[in-house]
Amino acid sequence: MNITAFRYEDSIIVVDCGLSFPDDDMLGIDLVIPDVTYLLDNIDKVKGFVITHGHEDHIGALPYILKEVNAPVYATRLTMGLIEHKLEEHGLMRSTRRKVVKFGQFINLGDFRVEFIKTNHSIVDAAALAIYSPAGIVVHTGDFKVDYTPVYGDPIDLQRFGEIGKKGVLALLCDSTNAERPGFTASEKTVGATLDTLFREHKKSRIIVATFASNVDRVQQIINAAYQYDRKVVVEGRSMVTVIDIAQKLECIKVPDNTLIDIDELKNYPDNKQVIITTGSQGESMAALSRMASGQHKKISIKPGDTVIFSSTPIPGNEKSVTNVVNELMMKGAEVIFQDVHVSGHACQEDIKLIYNLVKPKYAVPVHGEYRHLVAQKEIARKLGIPKENTFILKSGDILEMDAKGARIHGKVPTGAVLVDGIGVGDVGNVVLRDRQRLAQDGIVIAVLGIDKGSAQLVSGPTIVSRGFVYVKESDELIEDATDLVLDEVTEALSRGITDWPKIKNLVKDILGEFIWKKTKRRPMILPIIMDN
Amino acid sequence: MNITAFRYEDSIIVVDCGLSFPDDDMLGIDLVIPDVTYLLDNIDKVKGFVITHGHEDHIGALPYILKEVNAPVYATRLTMGLIEHKLEEHGLMRSTRRKVVKFGQFINLGDFRVEFIKTNHSIVDAAALAIYSPAGIVVHTGDFKVDYTPVYGDPIDLQRFGEIGKKGVLALLCDSTNAERPGFTASEKTVGATLDTLFREHKKSRIIVATFASNVDRVQQIINAAYQYDRKVVVEGRSMVTVIDIAQKLECIKVPDNTLIDIDELKNYPDNKQVIITTGSQGESMAALSRMASGQHKKISIKPGDTVIFSSTPIPGNEKSVTNVVNELMMKGAEVIFQDVHVSGHACQEDIKLIYNLVKPKYAVPVHGEYRHLVAQKEIARKLGIPKENTFILKSGDILEMDAKGARIHGKVPTGAVLVDGIGVGDVGNVVLRDRQRLAQDGIVIAVLGIDKGSAQLVSGPTIVSRGFVYVKESDELIEDATDLVLDEVTEALSRGITDWPKIKNLVKDILGEFIWKKTKRRPMILPIIMDN
Repeated sequence: MNITAFRYEDSIIVVDCGLSFPDDDMLGIDLVIPDVTYLLDNIDKVKGFVITHGHEDHIGALPYILKEVNAPVYATRLTMGLIEHKLEEHGLMRSTRRKVVKFGQFINLGDFRVEFIKTNHSIVDAAALAIYSPAGIVVHTGDFKVDYTPVYGDPIDLQRFGEIGKKGVLALLCDSTNAERPGFTASEKTVGATLDTLFREHKKSRIIVATFASNVDRVQQIINAAYQYDRKVVVEGRSMVTVIDIAQKLECIKVPDNTLIDIDELKNYPDNKQVIITTGSQGESMAALSRMASGQHKKISIKPGDTVIFSSTPIPGNEKSVTNVVNELMMKGAEVIFQDVHVSGHACQEDIKLIYNLVKPKYAVPVHGEYRHLVAQKEIARKLGIPKENTFILKSGDILEMDAKGARIHGKVPTGAVLVDGIGVGDVGNVVLRDRQRLAQDGIVIAVLGIDKGSAQLVSGPTIVSRGFVYVKESDELIEDATDLVLDEVTEALSRGITDWPKIKNLVKDILGEFIWKKTKRRPMILPIIMDN
Repeated sequence: MNITAFRYEDSIIVVDCGLSFPDDDMLGIDLVIPDVTYLLDNIDKVKGFVITHGHEDHIGALPYILKEVNAPVYATRLTMGLIEHKLEEHGLMRSTRRKVVKFGQFINLGDFRVEFIKTNHSIVDAAALAIYSPAGIVVHTGDFKVDYTPVYGDPIDLQRFGEIGKKGVLALLCDSTNAERPGFTASEKTVGATLDTLFREHKKSRIIVATFASNVDRVQQIINAAYQYDRKVVVEGRSMVTVIDIAQKLECIKVPDNTLIDIDELKNYPDNKQVIITTGSQGESMAALSRMASGQHKKISIKPGDTVIFSSTPIPGNEKSVTNVVNELMMKGAEVIFQDVHVSGHACQEDIKLIYNLVKPKYAVPVHGEYRHLVAQKEIARKLGIPKENTFILKSGDILEMDAKGARIHGKVPTGAVLVDGIGVGDVGNVVLRDRQRLAQDGIVIAVLGIDKGSAQLVSGPTIVSRGFVYVKESDELIEDATDLVLDEVTEALSRGITDWPKIKNLVKDILGEFIWKKTKRRPMILPIIMDN
């Protein structure tokens, strides 16, 4: 959920506007977007959104936030292509001002001037930003790697980093994702060589390659290998089809004529003339590969002799689902290859040192990655001679103030996660989440009582119904005993003249909760409902 | 959930009886034990449980299964110590026959003779089994590694593996966990050397070491390092205290006098004289380390200057929780060390080859590990010259039949996961789990209607209550509209003479479900309750 506001007096620019996917305890939530109260409070100052690249964690929240903060969006070509696809889905194309920016181009946004600098990453058209302001120059790398032999376009513009560095840079905000990893990140082209070898070694089998939907260069290389070995290619998985479609229109990917075919044409070709490029490399249960593995894909089933290549690495947290898919594929007889067919899109330690040496910032502000990665980059900065007190590890919402006197963390703006569930944005809060967690744990037991308000008599019920608690046939006796207990206690309470519904509800909650805990050692949610008759 | 039955005519022996922890979709489940229908159907043939080592996935289901299948239990000393602790908790000590077996010792169980062979593993007293029967010898390695310089006791008894191999072994069941990893597994002693270096380098700070509760040798080495650098040791975390307590009584661990202290005595020593050995190396939210990291531990809080060592590696699936704990520790100012302070307890590829070369089995049956690991061992066996058709990858329940004519998979016995929730064993089935998943996703909407059966009149309600669906203040209007809708539809249905309660319930379910989906794009569980008045 990357979003950073830069402010100089009355000008604010926003770098990136990403979403994040829900944590395991955010039950039922579809996605998470940032709280932009600070921007809303200063809406007249917001000059625009400047986007570094087209990954979901950098562009995904735009359609939600633009509805509240309608400012122009600046991005490079493929990034803008992906943003526009989102804006179309949300009906925001007409209301959103947009400008496609070229590398080396400057844009003026209030007191700021922003330059887009070519970098490399696991998506085409990634940019670093040089942000010029009266207070000094800030360089923001975005997510990046150093690739001297990229598949598409130019290598990272190291000369320009050096040139700007020479002018004197106030602060460097540098990608920390791989700051724990020693050495250099390998070029994307090395994967092409591996793919070539694998295609040569598996001439007889159908080849299925799973990778990240947005990695256009990877798809390009798979297509190249397929073309080389005279195979037809099917792209499968909605998100990948979308990205490749946009990339083709923008000519970020070159597909030889008659290479891409429709999935329904597969049957016209023998197995060893087919390549299927698919989503699902993270073991996502609804993605195409998982459906193939579990036999739920309508058009492709895995069979003995298939070769499945994972051109990816599991994102932390996905290891188990990936292994489940690998197991399923193997049980269906496929050969599964998952080693050394991937390179990272992020700079490792030596690459980070290179950027620091070109930019030579006064202040270091590690960005992107877990807290542990920020700490690892701080250590790198220290080794490069940046004094400890000149490195700032920011937490969400921290305000880093930089002026002639120095730099300091000075206060906080409101931040937080806004949960999106269905079409509801922000209407699922902590109470609802806690209830879902409770329901998930031990289910719910509902006790309905019909009470005549006038006579304070129980006229119907108690009726006790449960869901997600215990299989009913096993527990008829339990529910009967509970019903008797509630009946006795409520009748007794009413006879004592207690006619305060909240009091009766609490009574039912307590005695039922205690009874169930004693009998089952479970704590379902207890929900008493009183019907006024 | 390891459990394997060996049968020869009227004799059955059971090797291991483990539990597993619930998958992510088994909401609210505490643990999972195996379905032992096959043993119950053949209960008079069951001669005993033979246990290879004391890990939960090998002993954890014993107290549950022994209640149904009361047969004697055979295990080595520490393994039995850990089993007895469980039996005491379940009140099964008096009813369970037990025998502590020494390495090299044979036990006779019906037509079987079982020999316990010394191995190494991440828990003391692990054993392989040589199972002698009229059909031939089967060697079962259990979980094992080859450690020439173990911390406690002898190295694996390779001579005996060779000697038995010379006799001619029918089948080898060999641990596959690390079958994808090339090379050899390092000795546990190498960790001792690393710990020594770390203790030397961090002389000024308090040291907290997190590791697996049952890894007695690891705890021994941490205690050794503490003693060496004149520090007092606190063991924290219930499961670890239990294991160390048992290990001390059985003299599997040697603690110098006055080294272990009580947690309340910590305050009497300066930081650099303290070592805290703790559970929580997997980021488990309730474990001691996680509570320290989040500031919820009653007696220990993390502070700047602390050194926290993860003497562990994240088990697949736990990466994210471990990273969360690491982040929290770092945010509190601790230095966190998590690289190269752990070795695996399982044999890597070259170790597996060694065992195959000593045992030289006719048939290979890879065991332990994911399916992908079993496939990796099959490939190792193939490289060692075991014909493909002589290697059997079994799925749970598969019957592998071996006789003079050969070996084959021949049929299946019933298997499955029996879910334990609270004190309920097996009373949470698919229906309950599906309900919990549904409830977790979008909550529940309950509609209560009081209907007079005689007059078929709605006398109270509809009352609509929701939990885990949407925060109520935001949705008053939604609930009001839903109430009106249900009122109209039910009144209309009753007026048309529909008095069949299931029909009315379905009607409410349908219209309410559709209305809510249209308004929110969510699908809460809809639960109509009709009260007969």
